Amino acid sequence: MLRQIDPEAIEHIAVGAAVLGTGGGGDPFLGKLMALQAVKEHGPIPLISVDELDDDAWIVPAAMMGAPTVMLEKFPSGKELGMVFDLLQQHAGRPIAATMPIEIGGFNSLIPVVAAAQLGLPIVDVDAMGRAFPEMQMVTFYLDGINPSPAVMADEKGNRVLMHTVDSVWGERFARSLTIQMGGAATLAAFSVTGRQLKESGILGTLTQAEAIGRLITESQGTDEDPVRTVLDHLGGFELFQGKVSDIKRRMDTGFVRGEALFEGIGEWAGRRMQLYFQNEHLLALEGGKPRATTPDLIAVLDRETGSPITTEGLRYGNRVSVTAIPCHPKWRTTAGIEAVGPRYFGYECDYVPVEERLRTEGAAR
Amino acid sequence: MLRQIDPEAIEHIAVGAAVLGTGGGGDPFLGKLMALQAVKEHGPIPLISVDELDDDAWIVPAAMMGAPTVMLEKFPSGKELGMVFDLLQQHAGRPIAATMPIEIGGFNSLIPVVAAAQLGLPIVDVDAMGRAFPEMQMVTFYLDGINPSPAVMADEKGNRVLMHTVDSVWGERFARSLTIQMGGAATLAAFSVTGRQLKESGILGTLTQAEAIGRLITESQGTDEDPVRTVLDHLGGFELFQGKVSDIKRRMDTGFVRGEALFEGIGEWAGRRMQLYFQNEHLLALEGGKPRATTPDLIAVLDRETGSPITTEGLRYGNRVSVTAIPCHPKWRTTAGIEAVGPRYFGYECDYVPVEERLRTEGAAR
Repeated sequence: MLRQIDPEAIEHIAVGAAVLGTGGGGDPFLGKLMALQAVKEHGPIPLISVDELDDDAWIVPAAMMGAPTVMLEKFPSGKELGMVFDLLQQHAGRPIAATMPIEIGGFNSLIPVVAAAQLGLPIVDVDAMGRAFPEMQMVTFYLDGINPSPAVMADEKGNRVLMHTVDSVWGERFARSLTIQMGGAATLAAFSVTGRQLKESGILGTLTQAEAIGRLITESQGTDEDPVRTVLDHLGGFELFQGKVSDIKRRMDTGFVRGEALFEGIGEWAGRRMQLYFQNEHLLALEGGKPRATTPDLIAVLDRETGSPITTEGLRYGNRVSVTAIPCHPKWRTTAGIEAVGPRYFGYECDYVPVEERLRTEGAAR
Repeated sequence: MLRQIDPEAIEHIAVGAAVLGTGGGGDPFLGKLMALQAVKEHGPIPLISVDELDDDAWIVPAAMMGAPTVMLEKFPSGKELGMVFDLLQQHAGRPIAATMPIEIGGFNSLIPVVAAAQLGLPIVDVDAMGRAFPEMQMVTFYLDGINPSPAVMADEKGNRVLMHTVDSVWGERFARSLTIQMGGAATLAAFSVTGRQLKESGILGTLTQAEAIGRLITESQGTDEDPVRTVLDHLGGFELFQGKVSDIKRRMDTGFVRGEALFEGIGEWAGRRMQLYFQNEHLLALEGGKPRATTPDLIAVLDRETGSPITTEGLRYGNRVSVTAIPCHPKWRTTAGIEAVGPRYFGYECDYVPVEERLRTEGAAR
């Protein structure tokens, strides 16, 4: 079991988290560079499991909020994490025991590594999505009625905001609006939890899982193995489509990058077409106008040859890819989970059907 | 000299502050009702002068932010002021010695009376504009380099936000954006100052001044005196125009009410037209396309018969009014003051000329 985050682990987590990030969660390359730099300066970060936390320990997740498009050009100064944690600690008058990722994504899995390094904290092997989602309240903590307050945001100019909102939805509204004012990307610490809350509500072991996925992809490259197949076997996922990117549209809208990508089939998929819709993350895969996979199941686009994950930002005309789907964590398959992050929440006129069930009844995936 | 705010003083302040509020600063009737209720419950509020404050006393202004149009329908629950002051006090770890109005306007002069009553604080006879202005950084404190942080906002739902911004302009951006999210109106405490800062940077005696103006208007009603003339003589102001409202346009835009009012001359002004442009407050008076008065001088619309001030919200087709102009406080006539609140800041293509100078060289006012 992974016991610390060192440069090798960072390389693997960056890749594996970008698979689970379903196209979003921020750019893995930038996240990796920031985390490598932090570990180079401060040494490896202890990775602890939730079992090692006292029930009343205080754990603060660290994340970047905003559109990945913006973060590519406007990245943190490096001081925001300290400002955010300091303000929170000063306000609450209690010490922070550990940090954690709020979601698993290329950037947002590694931002807590930077925070942990700077602040001398351990990082907990857990997150609150088991994947990446675009909105702040889309966390398992929300399903368990945990309020995100006090939430703290900061930007690279030195502005800091602390919020006490009546619920997660108001937290998302205020934080999104401030993120836009802050230039489209901001550093956020929300949903601080106790050790007890985290044991009950977190999705456990997801940094270890990301590391394992990244390692599998890297190690299968240059061998006879099909890295896509290897990853899907490991995760119980499915290949929905093989194709070339034939069109990609992105637009900035209310602080998100929204858009769609079109794929023309190659090989045995020749003559077929797949469409992906995204809001930071991939949310819906259509073939011939019919849903093949939807949120909250994970839709990941992997390079057909190397198995490397491609973010919505990284998709380019002509990329030869596998579009894959991976069952989400059971917490998202409950009625409350589907209401919070299912296709209808995002305005898509279709019901959630677990991907493995959809494929069993509709066939054609492998 | 006024030594306490009792129901009679509230009646007068509501009227006088609406004159100085230049059409904005919130609805005087609502402000009056809230203040009367607070004083009925808690007794009269001690009014102190800045000289009575220790240099290191901590004074917190209380205000409503947003569009007057919205405040007419969405008014505070009454708990926001307590939430705002509590959060600020808890965060700063020091006691609040007094409150004050940040601006003089029908609503925002009386909101601190409500805060003072609820929290058992005195109110200081001072403000930071000597009138009302639409944006948060348009205070004399800004001219003296005072940062508005920590600023706290709250809404009637119970949401609270504390901001530390690098300067006033960022404070305005965040607060405006949150005000819009909060539904277009919110309770705000920003620009907390020490007694020393207030003595140097405040505009002194403005609650007493508002009370005196209100008293003059009320007492001249039903007599042979012309209440408009009485007020203008008291303030050294000018009547720019007498006319009837012939058109009024208002729109909500980026959290403000913006618009213009058109007046057709009556009496000796017959055949002439005046146009007023406003953003919450009246900012520019044109006759025949030429400026007659501009911000930061005060442009107030008074009922021709009663002398009662009419807010931009209260203007109705057919109202017979005097359009008046009153010289602003000298602090706004400096280069820095004109840069902060002069006509060009608001996008009007004309220079600031003190109203008395403009009228002396261009004639026609009395």
